[in-house]
Amino acid sequence: MDRTQQILAGDLRAVARLIRDIDDGLPKAREILKELYPHTGRAYIIGITGSPGVGKSTLVDQMIQNLRCCGKTVGVLAVDPTSPFSGGAILGDRIRMQRHSTDEGVFIRSLATRGHFGGLTPSTRGAIAVLDAMGKDYILVETVGVGQDEIEIVRAAHTTLIVLIPGLGDDIQAIKAGILEAGDIFVINKCEREGTQKTRQELQMMIEMDKDRKVKGGWKPTIFACEAVKNEGIEELMSGIEEHRAFLFQKDANYFERFQQDRARMELFDLVKQDVVQAVMNHLTGSGQWDQFIRELVQKKTDPYTLAERILACCLKLEQDF
Amino acid sequence: MDRTQQILAGDLRAVARLIRDIDDGLPKAREILKELYPHTGRAYIIGITGSPGVGKSTLVDQMIQNLRCCGKTVGVLAVDPTSPFSGGAILGDRIRMQRHSTDEGVFIRSLATRGHFGGLTPSTRGAIAVLDAMGKDYILVETVGVGQDEIEIVRAAHTTLIVLIPGLGDDIQAIKAGILEAGDIFVINKCEREGTQKTRQELQMMIEMDKDRKVKGGWKPTIFACEAVKNEGIEELMSGIEEHRAFLFQKDANYFERFQQDRARMELFDLVKQDVVQAVMNHLTGSGQWDQFIRELVQKKTDPYTLAERILACCLKLEQDF
Repeated sequence: MDRTQQILAGDLRAVARLIRDIDDGLPKAREILKELYPHTGRAYIIGITGSPGVGKSTLVDQMIQNLRCCGKTVGVLAVDPTSPFSGGAILGDRIRMQRHSTDEGVFIRSLATRGHFGGLTPSTRGAIAVLDAMGKDYILVETVGVGQDEIEIVRAAHTTLIVLIPGLGDDIQAIKAGILEAGDIFVINKCEREGTQKTRQELQMMIEMDKDRKVKGGWKPTIFACEAVKNEGIEELMSGIEEHRAFLFQKDANYFERFQQDRARMELFDLVKQDVVQAVMNHLTGSGQWDQFIRELVQKKTDPYTLAERILACCLKLEQDF
Repeated sequence: MDRTQQILAGDLRAVARLIRDIDDGLPKAREILKELYPHTGRAYIIGITGSPGVGKSTLVDQMIQNLRCCGKTVGVLAVDPTSPFSGGAILGDRIRMQRHSTDEGVFIRSLATRGHFGGLTPSTRGAIAVLDAMGKDYILVETVGVGQDEIEIVRAAHTTLIVLIPGLGDDIQAIKAGILEAGDIFVINKCEREGTQKTRQELQMMIEMDKDRKVKGGWKPTIFACEAVKNEGIEELMSGIEEHRAFLFQKDANYFERFQQDRARMELFDLVKQDVVQAVMNHLTGSGQWDQFIRELVQKKTDPYTLAERILACCLKLEQDF
């Protein structure tokens, strides 16, 4: 069996190796991804995001447990920002999910590498495709933070959970701004803390205010309160996810078709961006021209805008048809 | 006077208009930025980042107050993620700084637009350049969140502040991973809350563990505790910033030279990335080819990796010298 067949057969070692190769940006990994592509599209993908400290890993752990009890297989990807210091942190964080490590129906991996040219998004999508092709029923993608990259990743999910904790006060405003449009379901975790009711009301108000719900196909985001560490509220949350899933697949709305197109568009855009930027940068740095440009900039002999235009003129040919 | 001269003369309306034009991506704005470039490099830039809810705006407000008392002029840029819903939120957030709105020595602007092709970073850098060229002594750049874009922005600062609050428990691990390498100074805000001592110890330990401090020129990050809302600890923090500034400009280390090169490199890279991706995407979407590709992807007639390679081959010419 070649590596592609091993993945399709669910060989855990082959899967782990391929995800590592994707993370490392090996060309061979890309060739395998091409072969796997026709076998993707079956898994249901759930994105989970929110600020550090809201208890995402504990929540994911309970979600795994719940899905396993229903006989579903689960893949988990935890996306962490690159850092030379992150090794220990990621490990510590993932310890909470360890109880599933001997369960053959669960596959958990951390993705740490961002690559030099903003490659986090393509490599995460690649890893999702691998878990999809190996036959997992559900894929949970957990991302730290609320940055743009993270939002892009969870946008690729069928259902996106935004996790909050009560008591952020006025500053919930700041959260609202960035993530409202990305969320299908809001989870107020650590709901035994003071302020849960207030946070729920604020979220509710914010959802009501959003009359123009085009991006979500008209779906009105729902709110669930959990105490994940005690496994409270998880069943209700899982029902909420199934409710959104049913909405997504409703046939008369053509919504799923558009959803698929949006995903394909994002995926291709991210890949093109990565490839084009990488090729141009390799060309510039390989020829030593890049360092020369930087020296000229520091000496203020030129400005970055003029240089960028010169680079564009030299590297692109856009007259041609495909 | 043309617009460039108006900016250099500190004309507030011209500055506001140019920043808006940069945010909107107008070509004219870019031409003015080219002319302003030789006049930049005098302002001291302070980046302030951290999760939503840690009190960044209140802190910035007190920092402005402190700098004004020392007779310094201040520019403030608040970078918010784009959202159709963010108008109110940003406004609400900025209200805290309103007391400075009648002070001619202070200029405050929010940047909301990300652009279609990841233009947040270039447009923020452009706005910084404008405030620099207009003659502000200090520029404070506040970003929401801890995503990669946000880190890139604060990396362009001379001194970067990471703001935290006590009581995040184990999950400080998650924060560490992403932002340690970006921070020159850690600010524990809301330090009257329980857990300040523990958070300080954890930060201290993390800083001690980082033996390999190349990226920061050997600077060992410092930690300050504040209760910004009561103006407590701000003076100490400002002294801490001056200490880092002195370190940055120490002559025998060649560090400032390398710092300038790193900034120029980031700035040019971000611009090239933006310009190249925008040109390729305009070409693809303009010809209708893009929609055709997306249809083929949804029908699984091809895969995104093969398509990206085809696009690369058609759009780039890399044989040429500069």
